[in-house]
Amino acid sequence: LDLWQSPPFSAEVRDGYLYARGVSDDKGQVFCHWKAIEALLKTSGELPVNIKMIIEGEEEIGSLNLPAFIHAERAKLAADVALISDTPMFGPQTPSLCTSLRGMVYTELVLRGCASDLHSGQHGGAVPNPIQALSQIISKLKDAKERVTVPGFYDSVLAIDPAMKRSMKRLPFDEKEYLKQVGAPELVGEKGYSALERRWLRPTLECNGIIGGYTGEGAKTVIPAVAKAKISMRLVANQDPAKIFEAFKAHVRSLSPKNVTVEILNHSLAFPARVRSDHPAVQAGLRALRKGFGKEPVFQGEGGTIPIVAEFERVLGLQTVLMGFNLPDDGIHAPNERFKLDNFYGGILAAGYFLEEYARSVG
Amino acid sequence: LDLWQSPPFSAEVRDGYLYARGVSDDKGQVFCHWKAIEALLKTSGELPVNIKMIIEGEEEIGSLNLPAFIHAERAKLAADVALISDTPMFGPQTPSLCTSLRGMVYTELVLRGCASDLHSGQHGGAVPNPIQALSQIISKLKDAKERVTVPGFYDSVLAIDPAMKRSMKRLPFDEKEYLKQVGAPELVGEKGYSALERRWLRPTLECNGIIGGYTGEGAKTVIPAVAKAKISMRLVANQDPAKIFEAFKAHVRSLSPKNVTVEILNHSLAFPARVRSDHPAVQAGLRALRKGFGKEPVFQGEGGTIPIVAEFERVLGLQTVLMGFNLPDDGIHAPNERFKLDNFYGGILAAGYFLEEYARSVG
Repeated sequence: LDLWQSPPFSAEVRDGYLYARGVSDDKGQVFCHWKAIEALLKTSGELPVNIKMIIEGEEEIGSLNLPAFIHAERAKLAADVALISDTPMFGPQTPSLCTSLRGMVYTELVLRGCASDLHSGQHGGAVPNPIQALSQIISKLKDAKERVTVPGFYDSVLAIDPAMKRSMKRLPFDEKEYLKQVGAPELVGEKGYSALERRWLRPTLECNGIIGGYTGEGAKTVIPAVAKAKISMRLVANQDPAKIFEAFKAHVRSLSPKNVTVEILNHSLAFPARVRSDHPAVQAGLRALRKGFGKEPVFQGEGGTIPIVAEFERVLGLQTVLMGFNLPDDGIHAPNERFKLDNFYGGILAAGYFLEEYARSVG
Repeated sequence: LDLWQSPPFSAEVRDGYLYARGVSDDKGQVFCHWKAIEALLKTSGELPVNIKMIIEGEEEIGSLNLPAFIHAERAKLAADVALISDTPMFGPQTPSLCTSLRGMVYTELVLRGCASDLHSGQHGGAVPNPIQALSQIISKLKDAKERVTVPGFYDSVLAIDPAMKRSMKRLPFDEKEYLKQVGAPELVGEKGYSALERRWLRPTLECNGIIGGYTGEGAKTVIPAVAKAKISMRLVANQDPAKIFEAFKAHVRSLSPKNVTVEILNHSLAFPARVRSDHPAVQAGLRALRKGFGKEPVFQGEGGTIPIVAEFERVLGLQTVLMGFNLPDDGIHAPNERFKLDNFYGGILAAGYFLEEYARSVG
């Protein structure tokens, strides 16, 4: 708590920002909608459309109860369209509608060689080394063009929407600036796609963690019995996480040497989501952002996962409008999290205008 | 200490064994030599050869001071031959002379991609992943035949001595039994060599540890900034550890993608050692073992490293006889470490006979 300049659980206004824990992700954004509703009720006395609100308090700990709740209460939750404010704006002057979320398959490989750790001098050269086997498997999961080698991985991937491609070219994104920001020697990724396309609209595979053998200071001469790796895939429409996980398992088994046993765990599966940019609610969202922020809004993607969006579509048949108001440098999950007041006020206006614009569009 | 059935620092005789901390590795073996000297002095009143004794107390913590001591005191330590008892017998009925020790190059690779850990959803597909790069490097350090791919790695490796090859064939070693003992799905290693040859007389490369990214329970969606691996090579005569390390570094650099930086640390270098089986002192050792244990002795190798043997040769020009008396199941470094009384008594006799036999051979 010492890193907080003001108490995290009482909001403080400073330098054009509201500071508080969760103010940007996601209390401030939720509050925009309450204030918009209040404003509409105070001025016109009624709301232009019927509203049902779900405020979820478990999103940061995996939304363990929400899918079952939605399924159980699907009659009560019936609606025409969903609106979520939990995505960033592309930049401070750029109101944004998010049109895609990536899905997820998160796996863990556990490789076992000998029954216990062995002395690498006494046994080295004769017994299997699960780190070596694991390295061989991981090194073959992507090819020289950084394409994922799981058979069928790309089969159901939708091509990037031409309108989205055009829209993305207009975004003020500079790969050199991004490279400087992440601090890497160079960018990597699937050939033929821009960095933004690779982050938002193309599936990928990453090794998120690896461990085996001696990892302390200095040297220990051991051949480990076990080595493990966390490997996740980010999916895009229309990849099916369960099918991808099955294909991944078969692929890993085909890559595994016989001198180790391989266990493949599943930590999570989530569908990707794509929003139809020509949907009336999305178009209403664009007009609402334009009026609320006085700036031309853009479409953007999001490389992360909001699993509930796919659930809304699968269980309730709902298109979701992803109209978020926070900024990439708000410091979410960190001390001194903040929410820009301009975005707070613009968000309130946009949230109110959305209700009016959507009502008008469905007339 | 609770795992000890008797106090570790007071020796207890039980079931034909002496139990104590370090009794097998290496106090009991050192004591064999004291008792042999005592016996010779008590019976014949003098020793057949001059003796200088070094008892090292730092071998288990890396022998940090011994090489410098030997170098500084090389005049005082001048001798014709060295004798060390710190190697096992092949089995309880098999007195053994060790004729080779492997050397060592112990390295660590530190790969860095982005300046900090990044969210694998937001950045996955665009930024380098040092675990992937590390896996690619490790997977290329050995080829499909399990040969080390470092250029020049095998150039100075001496072929296995035909006499040693014949001698090893007579050893009661069963690869199926060994496989069962280590508990692995199958053995691995360089094609064209037996498991014992691969463990004793062929160089190898092992990954002793690896770590990067998230390694706790469950899932965390991170692209790590850093990944590290400990990689060691066991060398055989006449490989030079410094040259091998240089070749390894160049090879790793050639295998490293440009999207990461690679740091290559050196944790230790040690020369391999090979004992000439036709050396008079080695032949004297064979005769001494035969008389001391009443069994036909064998030659064996040792896959581990006793760095001082190479130092004796390099600094003092000494051939070392490696005549050890403990057993593979003595539980060294573990609770209830033990030293078989038969081996203790046989060792005393062999140590005494060695002095007589060697004196006679150079007589």
